[in-house]
Amino acid sequence: MGVSTDQMVARPCKLVRYKGGYLWRSVKRERYKQVPINKKSAHKESPQDWALIVRNVLIGQEGDTGSMHLRYFEISKGGYSSLEYHNHEHIVIGVRGKGTVRLANRKITLRPFDALYIAPRTIHQLSNRYDEPFGFFCIVKAKRDKPKIVSPTDIT
Amino acid sequence: MGVSTDQMVARPCKLVRYKGGYLWRSVKRERYKQVPINKKSAHKESPQDWALIVRNVLIGQEGDTGSMHLRYFEISKGGYSSLEYHNHEHIVIGVRGKGTVRLANRKITLRPFDALYIAPRTIHQLSNRYDEPFGFFCIVKAKRDKPKIVSPTDIT
Repeated sequence: MGVSTDQMVARPCKLVRYKGGYLWRSVKRERYKQVPINKKSAHKESPQDWALIVRNVLIGQEGDTGSMHLRYFEISKGGYSSLEYHNHEHIVIGVRGKGTVRLANRKITLRPFDALYIAPRTIHQLSNRYDEPFGFFCIVKAKRDKPKIVSPTDIT
Repeated sequence: MGVSTDQMVARPCKLVRYKGGYLWRSVKRERYKQVPINKKSAHKESPQDWALIVRNVLIGQEGDTGSMHLRYFEISKGGYSSLEYHNHEHIVIGVRGKGTVRLANRKITLRPFDALYIAPRTIHQLSNRYDEPFGFFCIVKAKRDKPKIVSPTDIT
């Protein structure tokens, strides 16, 4: 029996072209997290939770239908992501430069093409103390819980 | 209230170190698909469905607990993956060389850091007609359906 290719494509595929220079076509470099001005949520975060980090959403933009999202993050020298934990998982792949990943009480250095699985509820933070920007892919599920921000002084 | 890091790590994180040369520590280059000798399943496949392709499972090996898997595939000149479709999705990221991706009746060339979302039930096949090996990351859910193999002559 024949298979019609038209029938097979209910949801669209998506190609995101790399432009060079750690930039992709039709993908904006945006703030790591958008912080609404009049925010009253249990998901506490403040701009000082993170610094010098940009996000490029490759798969998972408005209108994308996939159940997994692919983002490219870049942390400049002295920058860091939130110290946080959540129920969802991360797959992280080093791409550019190198950086430090804190996993609970452990610290590792992540370099290009190193792959890291961050398990649910692990307190984690990514940071960069090197001159070259630290770039990495991060894959998450589309449906995910909000991170809980941790203060370094809260950790026992 | 303090947060104990010990409490937070119920499931282990996993770091897979890149060794250079498109190889990772403790990761075997293995056959693309294992074909049991006395196979009697609806999931029809034969060695001639694919050629000259190796798989490196970075996240998703025996014992890994994550709900998403990360694999690095490499297709040598003249090689190809199965022409197939399934309900699960792929996120593909070009890493090494370049190759061709068939998506239903469309063909695209994938180059390093190009990102591709392959939607459910899209007939697809990856192949390489270039001298350099075509390497790419492929991310899938851990729980996924078996691919259905399509014969090129079946497509209308």
